[in-house]
Amino acid sequence: MDSFAPTERTTLKRLPKRGAFDHETVYSILDEAFICHVGFSNDGQPFVIPTSFGRIDDLLYIHGSAASRMLRTLEGEVPVCITVTLIDGLVLARSAFHHSINYRSVVILGSAARVSDEEEKLRALRAISDHIIAGRWDDVRGPNEAELKATLVLRVPLREVSAKIRTGPPVDDDEDMSLQVWAGELPLRIVSGEPVADPQLPSEIEVPSYAAGYKRGCKV
Amino acid sequence: MDSFAPTERTTLKRLPKRGAFDHETVYSILDEAFICHVGFSNDGQPFVIPTSFGRIDDLLYIHGSAASRMLRTLEGEVPVCITVTLIDGLVLARSAFHHSINYRSVVILGSAARVSDEEEKLRALRAISDHIIAGRWDDVRGPNEAELKATLVLRVPLREVSAKIRTGPPVDDDEDMSLQVWAGELPLRIVSGEPVADPQLPSEIEVPSYAAGYKRGCKV
Repeated sequence: MDSFAPTERTTLKRLPKRGAFDHETVYSILDEAFICHVGFSNDGQPFVIPTSFGRIDDLLYIHGSAASRMLRTLEGEVPVCITVTLIDGLVLARSAFHHSINYRSVVILGSAARVSDEEEKLRALRAISDHIIAGRWDDVRGPNEAELKATLVLRVPLREVSAKIRTGPPVDDDEDMSLQVWAGELPLRIVSGEPVADPQLPSEIEVPSYAAGYKRGCKV
Repeated sequence: MDSFAPTERTTLKRLPKRGAFDHETVYSILDEAFICHVGFSNDGQPFVIPTSFGRIDDLLYIHGSAASRMLRTLEGEVPVCITVTLIDGLVLARSAFHHSINYRSVVILGSAARVSDEEEKLRALRAISDHIIAGRWDDVRGPNEAELKATLVLRVPLREVSAKIRTGPPVDDDEDMSLQVWAGELPLRIVSGEPVADPQLPSEIEVPSYAAGYKRGCKV
């Protein structure tokens, strides 16, 4: 099984059994997650900005306006941290102390570089679109030259990467096991509601199946 | 209406109409959000770590193991960024370029300080518990002295804070309005599933109402 090599910075000091480095685990979390949080520093102040992303093999792509402060800072190849978090449930223990959250997260350390090649840029934009809602790209008008020019795409190679996972029931102290309080897991998930048509949409245009049956966790 | 004063660092340079600084908007986003992403730098490398949090008035609290690398870095009062993101829906436009996400986010800049006062520490821990699942704290065994000692609580004052919000349908170019493609919003939300009892739980203990009827966005 292919794995990312743990580094000093990605090795879990506490609870190491929650850590994972294999590609399969890392990629499955990335592919199910909806957005990532991008961390970078500017004049000594850290910033954390949510954004969408896409993945092709071991490359992660983010995009945005060519005027974006975040992207313009990042294309200087400064150190970046990209974190992806899935919340799977609340862990309700018998003591306040042992409450927890079941989650799967990935932390990526590295730096971003601007994608200049037009073909890679289009592939990346399609990957970001597919990541958010597979099937959409083929239905819509693709980007024209002016739009491509106004869009900055950055590539972050997946090299220094780690996953962290908590699953299962609470772990209580022995002396609390007889307390008369409910304990267990409350699963959480993201669901889609009824699609809301654009007010200007002609009524004969139907909701496409990829929107009507939208689910997270499905990658084409 | 009370507001946070915009600063050079929290002023939106692009799309300023998406920005908000009033307390009501900021607090409602913080209170509905499940977790935050904490950004800080260590040896020039930014890190972004997901964690739970609580709020009491204009103070935000995070907590964790006293051995946590993140908390021990942060209690040095280094610059921190705490970001909270709610995803409300996908915005499906007629062109790839105008696709977007409806979201509400809050970015907090500042620094964290360790809570030493025992009373404030307990208040903060209760606020974090209430934030995740209101009603739980009163049902469970509260923290004992050893647990309190093993727990580090940090306080981040809400001073330099901004919210960013996108709502509504896609905004397409005039020349795309006649394209025969569905456009609109696909709402997304977090829901809870059936509670899963701890395998060691006596069967006569019932699921409490705050877990059976769990919803995000409700603050006591």
